[in-house]
Order: sequence, then structure tokens, then C-alpha cells
Amino acid sequence: MVELGSAARAASRTVAAAPTAVRNRALLAVHDALDGARAGLMEANRQDLEQGRAKSLDAPLLDRLELTPARIDAMLEGLRQVVALPDPVGSISDMRSMPSGIQVGRMRVPLGVIGIIYESRPNVTVEAASLCLKSGNAAILRGGSESLASNCAIAECLQHGLQAAGLPEAAVQVVSTADRDAVGHLIAMPEYVDVIVPRGGKGLIERISKDARVPVIKHLDGVCHVYIDDFADDEIAFTVAVNAKTQRYGTCNTMETLLVAEGKAAAMLPRLAQAYAEAGVELRGCPRARELMPAAKAASEQDWREEYLAPILAVRVVAGLEQAIDHINTYSSQHTDSIITQEHGHAMRFLREVDSSSVMVNASTRLADGFEYGLGAEIGISTDKIHARGPVGLEGLTTQKFVVLGEGQIRT
Amino acid sequence: MVELGSAARAASRTVAAAPTAVRNRALLAVHDALDGARAGLMEANRQDLEQGRAKSLDAPLLDRLELTPARIDAMLEGLRQVVALPDPVGSISDMRSMPSGIQVGRMRVPLGVIGIIYESRPNVTVEAASLCLKSGNAAILRGGSESLASNCAIAECLQHGLQAAGLPEAAVQVVSTADRDAVGHLIAMPEYVDVIVPRGGKGLIERISKDARVPVIKHLDGVCHVYIDDFADDEIAFTVAVNAKTQRYGTCNTMETLLVAEGKAAAMLPRLAQAYAEAGVELRGCPRARELMPAAKAASEQDWREEYLAPILAVRVVAGLEQAIDHINTYSSQHTDSIITQEHGHAMRFLREVDSSSVMVNASTRLADGFEYGLGAEIGISTDKIHARGPVGLEGLTTQKFVVLGEGQIRT
Repeated sequence: MVELGSAARAASRTVAAAPTAVRNRALLAVHDALDGARAGLMEANRQDLEQGRAKSLDAPLLDRLELTPARIDAMLEGLRQVVALPDPVGSISDMRSMPSGIQVGRMRVPLGVIGIIYESRPNVTVEAASLCLKSGNAAILRGGSESLASNCAIAECLQHGLQAAGLPEAAVQVVSTADRDAVGHLIAMPEYVDVIVPRGGKGLIERISKDARVPVIKHLDGVCHVYIDDFADDEIAFTVAVNAKTQRYGTCNTMETLLVAEGKAAAMLPRLAQAYAEAGVELRGCPRARELMPAAKAASEQDWREEYLAPILAVRVVAGLEQAIDHINTYSSQHTDSIITQEHGHAMRFLREVDSSSVMVNASTRLADGFEYGLGAEIGISTDKIHARGPVGLEGLTTQKFVVLGEGQIRT
Repeated sequence: MVELGSAARAASRTVAAAPTAVRNRALLAVHDALDGARAGLMEANRQDLEQGRAKSLDAPLLDRLELTPARIDAMLEGLRQVVALPDPVGSISDMRSMPSGIQVGRMRVPLGVIGIIYESRPNVTVEAASLCLKSGNAAILRGGSESLASNCAIAECLQHGLQAAGLPEAAVQVVSTADRDAVGHLIAMPEYVDVIVPRGGKGLIERISKDARVPVIKHLDGVCHVYIDDFADDEIAFTVAVNAKTQRYGTCNTMETLLVAEGKAAAMLPRLAQAYAEAGVELRGCPRARELMPAAKAASEQDWREEYLAPILAVRVVAGLEQAIDHINTYSSQHTDSIITQEHGHAMRFLREVDSSSVMVNASTRLADGFEYGLGAEIGISTDKIHARGPVGLEGLTTQKFVVLGEGQIRT
């Protein structure tokens, strides 16, 4: 891994200095190589699936592992989108003259070497490689051992693309060893790796965060809230509360707890209970919520902290804005929380005081997403406060350095 | 420490929601309390100094520990400056309309709870507390045990100021136990502490970075370079190369290695050698530099990596820009590096390709500083790439969250 790291560090300098056009040319060559290697990709993936079935991997894992023609199309479409994104690298902002006469500003530059650790989805290999390369970084990619053959086939296409653009092959390295210690080494080489982005289940991410000697951009829970305020518009409240829960269940920006101001409870909860029942959502309520939603089970303290990722919803009636903010700041995972209100002052207080990576007014939590936010593709959603918070796009894979332009100024 | 952390977390919400005026009022009340407690501060500091002498602390440490009337004046001046700084909290930037109809922007918000771990200088207690409070954060301050009495006396003034402004006393907590395990606990409570800023020697910072479970904004070495290019203006080159080394020796932004293009070596090195000799600077050169600076000792490989913090300078003659950038990216600590040139293309390449927190053209590395950069007071200079890079002012103690304004938009 030291050899790999040291090669990545050297390659990162070349990639960082390469013009946008060269990096885009590499991405387009990867695109064409993947398109031309469809049969080989499907065959490699078939081997992974066969081995996976022999090892009795569970059905959702096998599903994530599978490459279909449609999924390869989506990979290619993703590459074209990344090529089309504006290049964040090199832009200089806030250039200002200082009393000494120097001009000081900030230039956006790549982080350097990014390590991505992920589970079985082979499309992450292409997605992560393209975002790192576009933002001028070298990447070390370590996928799950279940997808080894697929990742090796993809790695060949990546190498082909780098070569076509005259970029060093160590610019993107796919760790192909099944050795489990590889991850342990990768996250403990601050001299070669600038940041680690783990993508996968909470267990993986917690393990990596605990042992890492390198900064980690991480996403833990998504315990998201919608709060229906006393001054909510009933139609907006109904539409958003249904969408935030039922549009998809397994995503991190799905609502897990609904808070309703007591003045709105009678108007909203019976109607919502019916909509949730029709969608097959199980309800767990506080005592007051259950009076208005008789089918709801009793919520326990643990329910307020739970990321169900399933058709289950916790519901609590609160006294008003103050108690809603307090509940969210106590139980939320600081991911995405939304208030439904027409009252300007309430909206402003909610935006200011709720300490989450996305705070919303009159919008579904499901909109917390790099594409919806106009960032283009995202490498993940960060629930950290340091560096990148919320959806992490190309900019999150860069940093800023100070640039100083002088004419001989010295310190006196 | 859990009690302390949990109190800080609760207080951080109040501080974050407090208007600028309230936080400024607290800082001014701290100012007045310190001004009124001069006698008590001096007496507490006398006890620390007496104990320090009894423990045979070395002279530089005793010097850093000492509070003089002039140093108290400087503390008060610092407080007034922090009050005068613009408040970064609450500003919303990049608000844009998205295809779904939502508006998405970013709001600058406090990090939450900041832990500061520092050595013996009691003025850091006031400086760190004021920067944290101004940026809407709660602070836990852990100073060296040598300054315990001084810090307790300062802590009383801090409490007085918080009380006067109606802010919770846990908004700034000074850890007054001499217990050495306190630091170990403080850096391992991600649920209560959002970031750690260690200030002190390299040993302290390395120890903390190694064991921390909380993100650390850290400053390690300052191995800074000045590169005199083939196209340098001789006078600028001479003035900057002398200033960057001799203006102060013990600071992190002092030049430690001088690189000279071979086309400029004969013109610059003998003249510089004389200036350095007059200032009492010992020279360590590569073979070609020594031909032109006969008094120089031979530089070893280790000299290129050395942060002398002393009147010693390593000097190397390089073939030109390419080799200079290569030398810097190999040996620099990514702190501050400067090129002296009149050639636009060389300046641009240096700015782009040198991977350091500050890159300069025709300016002394000694100018890498929060005040010189217009940031106001700085909590430190970060040599990290993640989150804050270079001088860290109020903005480095904040983060950005996404704010989304909708009118009922949902995900489809």
C-alpha cells in the first residue's frame, strides 16, 4: 500500500497541473472504453455474481452487485455529465488589496489523493474515479471483495482512458487485492492520502472513522424531520409530509419523524394517517398523536432516534416551534430537516437554529441531493461539520490555498 | 469531562442563536472585567511564575508564562479588535433557483463546540475565548498546568462577561484541573466537541492528532521557501530573501530554505551571503551554492527538511523553475512558499503547481499571517488541507449549511 500511496502522490501532481481539457479527454476515453467493453464487463460481473451466489450473499447485496445493460448506460450517462460540469480547479476568488500593498485571494485546488472505500456496487468505481479526476485529484479505490472481477474489468477501461489522455496510470488505482488489511493501511497513511470517503453502511463508516489517521468525509445517519407549524398551509403540509416519507424508503433523506404543532394536529393527522395507511406505512406516535391516529403504535424514546429506512414513521405532537427545534436538535442526525409554515419569522428561526446540514422551508427532505442542489454528481452527503457539509460535489473534493501577489513587499 | 462537554453542547445552541450585539456585549464586559482585575491577574500570575521557578522551568517557557502590564494591554486591545470584526455568522451566499423551483444557498453557521489545547501562554485563554464567542461557538479551553492560577483568574473575568450579556456560563469553560487525562477525554468526545485546535509545539500537536477522535485543525512545520527565479528583479530578490529569513527567526512563516536559479546564482549569492553574515545567519549550502558562498557549510539531505526556527539557512542552486517547484513539493511542509520573478508565466505556474497553504509572488513569506491577509485575529495557521488551510480567522471557526426555500416542492 505504501508503493500505491507513493505512486498516487506523484501522479496527483501531474493530474492537478493538467488542464481541464486533458482531464475531460481522459473521461471521454474512459466512456468509450467502457462502451466498447460491455461484453467483457458483463462477463466479469457474471463471475462475481456466481461467486456471490455460491457464498450465499443476500438478495439486496446481489442486486447492488449486478451490472445490467441499463446500469452500464447509466454509468456512461454519468461520465458524460461529469465531463459537462464546470471545472472548479484554478478559480481565484476574493482577491483584495491589503494595507501592505499585497493582493490576497484564494485559489481553488485539488485535495491531492482521495481514498474511496465502498461496498459492492461496481458503478461506484466509475462514479468516484470520474469525480476525483474531474476535480484534479488522484484516486485510490477500494471496493468490496464481492465485486473484484467487475472492478478489475472497469479498472482496465480507466487505465485506457488515462493513457489516451497522457495522464499517469497511478492517477486512478483500483486496489485489486482481496487482502482485508489493505483498508487498514489506506486509512493510516496521511503522507500519501489526503482524505478518505467511505461509502456504505453505517458499520463500515464507523469502523473507518474510528481507525483513520487521515481526515474522513463521512455520512452517518439520516434521521430527517418535517415539522408542520401552526402557520402551515394545509395542502403544502400534506403533500410534503407524504412525499418526504413515501417517495422512497431506503434513502438517507427520507423523513423518519413527523412533528406537528398542536394547533394543526386535528386538521392534519387523521388525513395523513389515511394516506400513510394507503401507502402501507406503519405509524408510531406519542400519546397525543395516537388519539388522532388510532392505528398508530406507541412510540418509545428509541423511535425518536431511529433511522428506519423502511415504511415506518414516528409522529409527535409538539407545543409549537420552540419544542420542534428542541426535538430536532436533540434527536436529529443533523442531516436534513424541513419546516412547513407561511409565517416568515418562524421560517427564519427554523433556518437559523436547526443545526443540520440542510434546513428547508416548505420543501420535501427528499430534495436534499447534489443534483437537486445544482452541484452535479455527488460523491456522498456529509453529516460532518468540518470541510464539506451536506451533499458533496466536485467542490468538496477541492480546497483553497491563499495566493499573494506582491511587488517586493516585506514584513516590517 | 462528559459533564463539561454536555454543558458546552447545550450552551453552544444559545450562543449560536444570540445576536451579534449580545456576543459583542459579552466581549466588552470581559474587556472591562480584565481591565478592572489587573492587580488580581498579576498576583495570580506571580504565583504561577513562582511555582514555575521552583520547578526549574526554562527561561523561554517562563517568559511565555509571564503577564506584564503591557501584555494585559495587548490582551485588551485584542478584545477590542475582535469586537470590531464583522460577524461571519448568518450570512447567506450563492442563493440560486433550481429547476424544481426551490431556492438553494448556504448559510454560515458556528461549528458548535471548539476545544482549544495550548501550552503556557495565558493570553491565549482570552484570545481563543474571544474568537470562539465572536463566531458563535462555545469553547472548552485547556491551558498548560503551569498557568493554572493565571487562567483561573482570567476565567473569572470571562464568566463575568458572559453573565453581563445574559449568556450561559458554560459558553466558555476553562478546564482548571491539573489532571493530565483531561486532554485525552476532551479529544475523544465527538458527541460534545466539534473540533480541536491545538496550539503549541510540534510534539503536543502530533500527540493530539494521533489520538483525537474529533477533527483537529492543526499546524505542524513551517519549512518555507523563497525561490529566486532566472527572471527575478535583483533588488526585490535581495530585499525579500533578507526579510524572509532575518525579520524574525522563531516564527513558522520564516524562510528556512533559499532556492536560486543557476542563472541568478552569481549575481545574488555573494551579496546575500554578506547580508546573512552581518545578521549572524549560518549558511548550509549545496556544492554549487558553496562555490559562491565560501563560508557556507555543506547541507545534508536532512537540511532540506529542517525547520530551524533559528538563524540558520539552507541554500540550493536549482536549474530553474521546474526543479524549484519539484524541490518545494518534495521538501516543503506546505506552509508558505514564494517566487521572485518578473516573468508572468513563471509566476502563474508557481502559483498553480506549488501545493502549499500560501503561495506568493514577489513577497516575503513573513507576510503569511491573519492580520496581513485581512482576516483579523487568527486562531492559528493550518497546514491541513481539509476545512481551513493557511491562517485561520473567524471564518475557519464556522461552517456552512444548505438552506432551501420552497413553496411545497416535492421529489418526483
